[in-house]
Amino acid sequence: MKPAEGRRRVVVEGVTPQVDGGRFPVKRTVGETVRVEADVFADGHDVLACVVQYRHEHAPVWREAATVGLVNDRWRGQFEVSRLGRWHYRVLAWIDRFATWRHDLVRRVQAEDVAVALQIGAELVEEAARRASVDDSARLHQFAAALHGKGDLEERRRLAVSSDLESLMKLWSARRFATASDELTVTVEPERARFSAWYELFPRSYAAESGRHGTFRDLESHLGYVANLGFDVLYLPPVHPIGRVNRKGRNNALLASPGDPGSPWAIGAEEGGHKAVHPDLGSLEDFRRLVATARELGIEVAIDMAFQCAPDHPYVREHPEWFRHRPDGSVQYAENPPKKYEDIYPFDFETEQWRALWSELKGVIDFWVGQGVTIFRVDNPHTKPFVFWKWLIAEVKRDHPQTLFLSEAFSRPKIMHQLAKLGFSQSYTYFTWRNTKEELTQYLTELTQDGAREYFRPNLWPNTPDILSETLQYGGRPAFLSRLVLASTLAASYGIYGAAYELLENEAREPGSEEYLNSEKYEVKHWPLTRPDSLRDLVARINRIRRENRALQSDWSLRFYPTDNEQVICYGKHTEDLANIVVVVVNLDSYHRQSAWIDLPLERLGIDARHPFQMHELLSDARYLWHGTRNYVDLDPQVTPAQVFRLRRRVRTEREFEYFM
Amino acid sequence: MKPAEGRRRVVVEGVTPQVDGGRFPVKRTVGETVRVEADVFADGHDVLACVVQYRHEHAPVWREAATVGLVNDRWRGQFEVSRLGRWHYRVLAWIDRFATWRHDLVRRVQAEDVAVALQIGAELVEEAARRASVDDSARLHQFAAALHGKGDLEERRRLAVSSDLESLMKLWSARRFATASDELTVTVEPERARFSAWYELFPRSYAAESGRHGTFRDLESHLGYVANLGFDVLYLPPVHPIGRVNRKGRNNALLASPGDPGSPWAIGAEEGGHKAVHPDLGSLEDFRRLVATARELGIEVAIDMAFQCAPDHPYVREHPEWFRHRPDGSVQYAENPPKKYEDIYPFDFETEQWRALWSELKGVIDFWVGQGVTIFRVDNPHTKPFVFWKWLIAEVKRDHPQTLFLSEAFSRPKIMHQLAKLGFSQSYTYFTWRNTKEELTQYLTELTQDGAREYFRPNLWPNTPDILSETLQYGGRPAFLSRLVLASTLAASYGIYGAAYELLENEAREPGSEEYLNSEKYEVKHWPLTRPDSLRDLVARINRIRRENRALQSDWSLRFYPTDNEQVICYGKHTEDLANIVVVVVNLDSYHRQSAWIDLPLERLGIDARHPFQMHELLSDARYLWHGTRNYVDLDPQVTPAQVFRLRRRVRTEREFEYFM
Repeated sequence: MKPAEGRRRVVVEGVTPQVDGGRFPVKRTVGETVRVEADVFADGHDVLACVVQYRHEHAPVWREAATVGLVNDRWRGQFEVSRLGRWHYRVLAWIDRFATWRHDLVRRVQAEDVAVALQIGAELVEEAARRASVDDSARLHQFAAALHGKGDLEERRRLAVSSDLESLMKLWSARRFATASDELTVTVEPERARFSAWYELFPRSYAAESGRHGTFRDLESHLGYVANLGFDVLYLPPVHPIGRVNRKGRNNALLASPGDPGSPWAIGAEEGGHKAVHPDLGSLEDFRRLVATARELGIEVAIDMAFQCAPDHPYVREHPEWFRHRPDGSVQYAENPPKKYEDIYPFDFETEQWRALWSELKGVIDFWVGQGVTIFRVDNPHTKPFVFWKWLIAEVKRDHPQTLFLSEAFSRPKIMHQLAKLGFSQSYTYFTWRNTKEELTQYLTELTQDGAREYFRPNLWPNTPDILSETLQYGGRPAFLSRLVLASTLAASYGIYGAAYELLENEAREPGSEEYLNSEKYEVKHWPLTRPDSLRDLVARINRIRRENRALQSDWSLRFYPTDNEQVICYGKHTEDLANIVVVVVNLDSYHRQSAWIDLPLERLGIDARHPFQMHELLSDARYLWHGTRNYVDLDPQVTPAQVFRLRRRVRTEREFEYFM
Repeated sequence: MKPAEGRRRVVVEGVTPQVDGGRFPVKRTVGETVRVEADVFADGHDVLACVVQYRHEHAPVWREAATVGLVNDRWRGQFEVSRLGRWHYRVLAWIDRFATWRHDLVRRVQAEDVAVALQIGAELVEEAARRASVDDSARLHQFAAALHGKGDLEERRRLAVSSDLESLMKLWSARRFATASDELTVTVEPERARFSAWYELFPRSYAAESGRHGTFRDLESHLGYVANLGFDVLYLPPVHPIGRVNRKGRNNALLASPGDPGSPWAIGAEEGGHKAVHPDLGSLEDFRRLVATARELGIEVAIDMAFQCAPDHPYVREHPEWFRHRPDGSVQYAENPPKKYEDIYPFDFETEQWRALWSELKGVIDFWVGQGVTIFRVDNPHTKPFVFWKWLIAEVKRDHPQTLFLSEAFSRPKIMHQLAKLGFSQSYTYFTWRNTKEELTQYLTELTQDGAREYFRPNLWPNTPDILSETLQYGGRPAFLSRLVLASTLAASYGIYGAAYELLENEAREPGSEEYLNSEKYEVKHWPLTRPDSLRDLVARINRIRRENRALQSDWSLRFYPTDNEQVICYGKHTEDLANIVVVVVNLDSYHRQSAWIDLPLERLGIDARHPFQMHELLSDARYLWHGTRNYVDLDPQVTPAQVFRLRRRVRTEREFEYFM
């Protein structure tokens, strides 16, 4: 045991936030606050002092935040993370001898005891004077002399408990035998990690005229459309050359017909692999221009990272050691017996040459960061080792803390959570398959209210190129509307696969399948974007509502409110100061009009239940006066399957006019 | 990163049982089972293998227990702790390549795929043959040859999936890139740590005749009484010389009168300190004889460890550096301003000489272990540093794993739990102040159902020499009966301060005080043990019931059952195999007859609700036939404030007579 340890009497335990006892960092975005709590206590009855210490990974020294004692030996302090990267924090506590002495002094009754106590106090003050700055030292010596002195006892006691002396002693506290908690880490990412609206499209479908393979230049012309819709992440499926060997045809046909463009996820051909762009899309320079132009419009271009190869990917020839081989010497294709995927060769992460493989794959990310990309949507991360992702993301973020990674793992809960813990900024979810009031309430509560929220940031997608849910297949326009409102207001991050979404594309390849008929994955499309029934205006409005209401820009305040109708779901979000409160009501029944009484927790929302308050419906711009906790809603799916209210509290001006803010 | 780490694809997380991520050991008693669970998963779809490894601290190698997969990637295995001391355990998991291959093989459809797979399988088998014992190696080579061979394809596939080959491959599994969890520790203590009945008495009050100071020899004669009551721990307040300086008088009078014996907790005088016995009690040899005689009767003698000194304790003279001094050079007495305790000098655990102090205090424990003591009731541990106790208990238990420590801390929850975490075998609780149905239900549920039960073992005391609760002061005999039944059946460990308890002593020093009038702490008593209203027979019966019903010997199965009367509490305990089920009903109202309908969870107790079952009331030996989940009880506090039922299920013999076991 080290010299001081035996006298380290303060215990610091149960520090939050933390994930698995500090094995993984918690997550925040720039400008957010980390509220740190800990159990802090010691033997006996001494008064304790406690601070939260924190620093950016590149800062040389700790900064400190004060704490307040809560009930049951719990203490709390907080700090703001103002810079990207990793921050460290810990809780430091010690016995405050002066405060203990002061606490006792005011309770002493006998003059003799007070006199003796003043002697002891004077020694503590003198001791502090030796640690203090020159100025403070002089003042402390004065205090000590007065305490020691022969003056009136009560006069000296008043001096001893003066707030001046208290402040000085706090500043120069000895911190003898202080106990520090283990250091914890918070990864600080750009705001988009917490609040983002994603739009996915296949660039090749955006040629100006039908029948031509779209290019990056074409897509550049289309950016205005995406910006008008209000999205801030434009996600592109893989943009690399597509393999020709065993290429899949339209509707996933086993063999492609001549002219079939193939799936973008069958990466690599003689033209190049993960660091090349498909020649039909244009040049790398075109790509960089696209990224730059998008950024001017407030849009980040995200690309897909699918770490797998088509059989004609250059890696297969150049690095056969990165693949598993069959007894006949051929490369092992992907399979899940009896199914075979002969157009895809997975990497063998158990290869002896794993270090070289890892290094090359990190090189791929670095390459695209070099092209201006900061957001990566990672394809099927759950089929590559967790330890690889942990390393990769940490390595990339060390040099590029602005990068974000979205985990596309539709897998078992523990696996999805592990990927989030080890570093993915955002995660796909089961949202697509959570449709009833109970399913949505339970799932979103789980994601936003328990410890998972420290590391798991959900990104809700009502559709993807792989998933056309039954709700959309059979629910028609009302379902498209309600699922859009749910995704965009339940979570601060959401995304749609367009133009399929706004154009209400709902035909599946076959009954029981979630695959789109004539899926864009296997062919070049040309979307009639100006069709009058397009949802584009509603999408634009939703995204504006999200930007204008801070309540919708974080998930932690999400709470579900009771309704008396299983088909009607109601929930709210608010800023911490309650300045912005949003309440959403959705009719989950796409076929029938539904009404419900809903219960709002007015007291918790800071609303006086005795007076009316205004419910400003932001999709229609209609305003309603409600009062009391119980109010009535009525939703016709053909007209308004969902309502997004901003709750405006009544404010009186000095002239006694009422208005609502 | 180490050579293998990058290929370590299996994740092992969330191992239970554990306390604070392994910072503290969990606790068991000899013969108990440790049921270990973990989240175990890997990327992809490979089949995993998982074992629990465990070993006694002095065993050179791990032993292994098999696991089964539960839902949601959770795995479970278990092992028995058959020996005192510390055991370590961890979870080890790896990708089972053969099982993965076998899983795929049975799903393959095309003959060509099966043929190729058999080639691959043959290689896996040959590889295992190189690791195997000579015998098994020969058999594995045979299998490999057959798989490789030219025989009928389906015949070879049948061979490949045979259970013979499966067992052999499991035995010689490669365990390549296996992942081990962190090692966790379980402290294994004697059964009394889990199941014990304590009886506290002041030896000096047990002289055969009134007016004389009792001795160890006198107490030896009294052991039969304690044994007849059925207790297995006899706990003695400090047996050391009592200080004379500032000695307290009767009823805690500031100054003792001549002849006042003083409080046993004011330890140390010229005759000696913590390693001496009070001359009036006899000699060390007498003490050793007492311990040995008690052990023959199945009773362990527990002594009190109060690490504090009277002013005339030899330590004060010999080691002034172990105490804090006032400016005038005098030793600082205990105080909590404005209260002063001038008869007690606390040790200064912040002394420069803390190592010597610790060493001496450990020497005190070692000394008493040398006299045959294995159980220590530790006085006010929360006023000495936690780090000291952690060290002390670990050090003592390393050489003497049979020792037990009871923490007498009536302090804040976090502090009591910390003491339990760091090593105390049992803990005093708030039971004395938990009286209503809601209080008892909530508190005992908290102690027995959540993570605390892995380290916190409650010991319930209805009274102590320091605490005569208001319930006992005003509740009369019914309260003494009901609190006794509650303490002894809610917890597997309980204790009473006798003879005050069985003689219904209920007079407080003054209204609002929990101090006994004429407290035995400050004077020698002589108890009229044979008084006809003594509860001794009931106490003896309760202790027999506890010994005869294994359900009452552990706390984890405790569940509260609904009753429709707030004054009537009902709860049950059962063995894991449901062979022993005990149901307790207590009337918490000491003044009025109360009746209630109670609801038993018959299905969970394995009782067929359609048939009658027998409720054997063990205090009265009466038997009742109940049926259905809802049954009626009626409790007159003057007759039976509590009932302890053994639930006997109906069994039919071959001759179709019914009886109940």
